[in-house]
Formats: sequence, structure tokens, C-alpha cells
Amino acid sequence: MKPFAKSTVAVVGLGLMGASMAWRLRADEAVGQVWGVVHRQETGQKALERGIVDTVVSWEDALSADALVLATPVRVIIEQLRALAVAPHLPDLVVDLGSTKREIVRAMGALPKGTLAVGGHPMCGKETSGIDSADPELYQGCRFVVVPTRRSTPEAVDWVRSLARALGTNPVEMEAERHDSLVAAISHLPYLASAALMSTVDTLAHEDDAALDLAAGGFRDTSRLAASNVTMMLDILMTNRDAVLKMVGSYREHLDALSDALASGDESRLADLLSRIRRARMLWAERKAQGGS
Amino acid sequence: MKPFAKSTVAVVGLGLMGASMAWRLRADEAVGQVWGVVHRQETGQKALERGIVDTVVSWEDALSADALVLATPVRVIIEQLRALAVAPHLPDLVVDLGSTKREIVRAMGALPKGTLAVGGHPMCGKETSGIDSADPELYQGCRFVVVPTRRSTPEAVDWVRSLARALGTNPVEMEAERHDSLVAAISHLPYLASAALMSTVDTLAHEDDAALDLAAGGFRDTSRLAASNVTMMLDILMTNRDAVLKMVGSYREHLDALSDALASGDESRLADLLSRIRRARMLWAERKAQGGS
Repeated sequence: MKPFAKSTVAVVGLGLMGASMAWRLRADEAVGQVWGVVHRQETGQKALERGIVDTVVSWEDALSADALVLATPVRVIIEQLRALAVAPHLPDLVVDLGSTKREIVRAMGALPKGTLAVGGHPMCGKETSGIDSADPELYQGCRFVVVPTRRSTPEAVDWVRSLARALGTNPVEMEAERHDSLVAAISHLPYLASAALMSTVDTLAHEDDAALDLAAGGFRDTSRLAASNVTMMLDILMTNRDAVLKMVGSYREHLDALSDALASGDESRLADLLSRIRRARMLWAERKAQGGS
Repeated sequence: MKPFAKSTVAVVGLGLMGASMAWRLRADEAVGQVWGVVHRQETGQKALERGIVDTVVSWEDALSADALVLATPVRVIIEQLRALAVAPHLPDLVVDLGSTKREIVRAMGALPKGTLAVGGHPMCGKETSGIDSADPELYQGCRFVVVPTRRSTPEAVDWVRSLARALGTNPVEMEAERHDSLVAAISHLPYLASAALMSTVDTLAHEDDAALDLAAGGFRDTSRLAASNVTMMLDILMTNRDAVLKMVGSYREHLDALSDALASGDESRLADLLSRIRRARMLWAERKAQGGS
């Protein structure tokens, strides 16, 4: 396959992640050409007008690119991989940006032998979506998880590492199963915790609207993820169900430990738990500030 | 009592809230004089050097101010009110900035007849604390809950409304019980939810450190409150225990509704719940953006 810097890269799906990636690659002239594949014509027009891609092509034409980057929701990626498995012609390399990896990696394993495929997951995002939220700096400083598949070679993995670095991210390689367990804790659980909070307060607000009137900064941050795109989150939750449910179970236990200490009036135990948690949060923030993102 | 603009105001406790308030009042020349009462000499020096107060006085001398604003943690406020109840001399008006109001308002009710006392709770803050985090703009645009007590008169409530407006906040009056139920949901529950999340992820990180390494923006926001000052939060939780435990119970039910829908694979039910929650979050954000803070 061609070296990264000379590759024609077709990005399938110009939503937040795909458009931000295409934009960055094109702005930096990091690759040969950047093509976009869109679902809605309007998105293609915006991508061309804003210089996000060199050209907009059909799905069929995209198959003649050197590398195809699938930047659609997880279950659309899986469908696209199934379509690729029976396509007459394939690009050298298929990569994806899906937020869960086990089912995608399994579908990649079913691609024809000789096709290269590597899973990817950039650990960044926003609670807004779509090309209008795209930002060539979106990826800067994030971690980019690179997930090998049955169709990966060291050369293909290196190509994806180059992509990760071109976006300004820090690549880290791991197996799909491990990735999915970790993101269940740090990404999917926070979403459900945030949604449950919003749901609790909204229900209370039906009795007393002042709840929403008085809610301020702490509530804003803790409930922010509840505004995430539902289609995207359903795809994530449904393809990572077991790991997510396990983490919700663990979260319940940690919440119970706190509320039991409060209910029993055991203040020194509560102080102990909360101090330990605070220290962990501060250490994490320091580590991130030191560029350990 | 003197009109607000001519009052000498003694702020007891120059932490984040007290120092930010004193600074704003002094910078705007909103009142006659601003005095500070501090626990540690170093804080008093900083307050004078930075022009946060006109002068630093002892607790005893502060009692000759026109109004005393107690800006210490909740249970310290309660102790101070008990000390005031037996003090030989009292200011005309006692106000507090405590985050829970029921126990404080009860202690205010035990002040000598003739003393005026009104509860206050500005709905703003940061997860950092202390005079070094103080900011004269901290209060701008927040709600300021004004809580009447057995020792309130319309004149005293008006004085506190003037204080709230001088700080750039929007005053709203309500009873202590209602206040405490609402903040249990919008402030104390988010803190515990955030702490439980940090605790869950930190425990997982003992098995696989990559959890903390990959954690990004969503985790950052949802876990932010876990870094709150523990002494302050213990005071809040212990003086609002029943309301907080009730809200944690409600939160558990809302979380269970989401995880049950996921566990059963009932995707349309899950989609329905998440869409409704997302809509509520977006409506709230719009309302806040339109100045409804």
C-alpha cells in the first residue's frame, strides 16, 4: 500500500468526527487527496464550500481510494463493512472511527483476505454533532486508540499511527475487548450517569420549576453529556451492552457506599471516602495538565 | 437599620465566596465600608494587599458593623450564630451565605428579639476554594436565594435583595425547606454522582491504568465536582441528609430505568427515554442562554 503521505483518503460520513478529520488532513496537506462521501447533498456542498475535502464522491467511487475511513455511527459502520465484504473492488486499507470496537473488529475480520483493516477510536468529541460543529483542531492533544484486527499487518497499523499523529493525537494500541471495557467506564457510564441526573431533576421540575431555574454550573457540567446525540449513543450502548451494564453495576456500588455512609451518619467514613475520591480526581487533572492526555 | 448603600458590612470568612463578595462590594463602592474577619492572618494580609476589604477586624469588633455576613462553611455558621445568640452586642442585621438553609434558619430564629436575620444562598461557585480563587465577577448573572427567618422583616429582606443586586445576581425568595430540597437535587446529588463516577473509574484504574489515561472531555466534566472541597461538602451533606438521601433514591430509580431498558434490549424504550432526557437538557440550556440563570 501507498505511504500515508501519498495516500488518497476517502472519509465516509462528514459529521463532527469525519469532517474534522478531513479538514485537518486537507488543511495540513498531510495526505495526497481527501475525498468525502456523504449521505445528504447539503453536507457535501458545505464540505466543498468550506474546503473540508478536495472532492465529494459516491460510495462506489470511494472504493478506488487508497484508504477508506468509516466515520459513521457504529452500526452503520458494521453495515458498511458487510457491504465491503461482498464488494467487487476494495481499497487497500479500511479504517473506522467507531466508539465501540468489538463488533466492528469482528466485521473487519470478515473482509476478503488481502484487504487490510484496522480499528481506530479518537478519544475526543463534543456534545454537538454534524459538519457545522466540525473543527480541524478537534483532535489536537487527544489519545487515538488503534485496534488491530485479523486483517491488520504492521504496515497497516503504522499507516493508522501516521494518521493519528497527523491529526495531532497520541496513538495507543490495544485489543478491542480491553478498549470496550475501558470506554464503558470512562465514556458510556458518564453518559448514563449524566442522563439519569437530568431525568431526576426534570422529574422534580414538574413539581417545582425552580429546580431548573436555580440549577447552575455544577449541574451544567454534570448533565452536559445528557445532550449527546441519541442515535450515536444508542449505537454505542447496544454494541457494548455487557461492558456498560457491568460498569453501571459497579457505579451503583460506589454510589451506595457513599449514600450508606451518609445515611448511617458515619461522618468519618464519609470524609475518608470523599477525600480519597477528591485526591484521585486531582491527581488525574494534574496528569492531564502535564500532557498525559 | 441603615440603608444598604451606607452600611458598614463585615464579611466573616474570606474564602472563595466571602472574598469575592467583599471584593465586588468594595470595587463598586456599593456600601459604606467593607470589613473582613479572617481565621488565618495570611488571608487577612492578602485581602488588604489586593484591596478586597477596607480593613481586617476581629470577630468582636465586627459586631459593631451594621451588617454581618457569615461566609464560612455551614456548620461554622451555625456555631457563629450560637455565639451571637449570647453576645453582649449585636449588629443590626445578620446574613449568611451557607449552602443549606434549614439548620441555619433555625439557629437564626434563636437570635435575640430585635436582631434582624436573613438567610442567603448565591447559586454560584467553583470547585476551587480560598481567597486565591476569589473573583469580583464570580456572582455575576447567578441566582441569589433569599430565605426569610423568624427574625426577618420586609426591610431586612430588602437589604439582602439590594446586596444580591449589588453583586450582579438575581434574587429569588423562598422558604428554607423548599430551598434545601431543590439544592439536594441540583447541587448535592450531582456532587455524589460525580464522586461515585470518579470512585468507579479510579477502582478500575487499579486493574488497568489506561482507564485514566484514555479518559477525556466527557469524563472530565462529569467528574469535575468530585474535586470539591470535602469539608464544605461534608457540612452540606450532613445538614441536608434527608433531602439528599431522598434525591439519591430518586436518582437510582432513573438510572435503573435506563439500565433496565438497555439490559432487556428494548431499544425503542431506551431511545424514548434518552430522547426525552436530551430534549429536557437542551431546553434547560436554551433557557439559561436566554438569561434565565
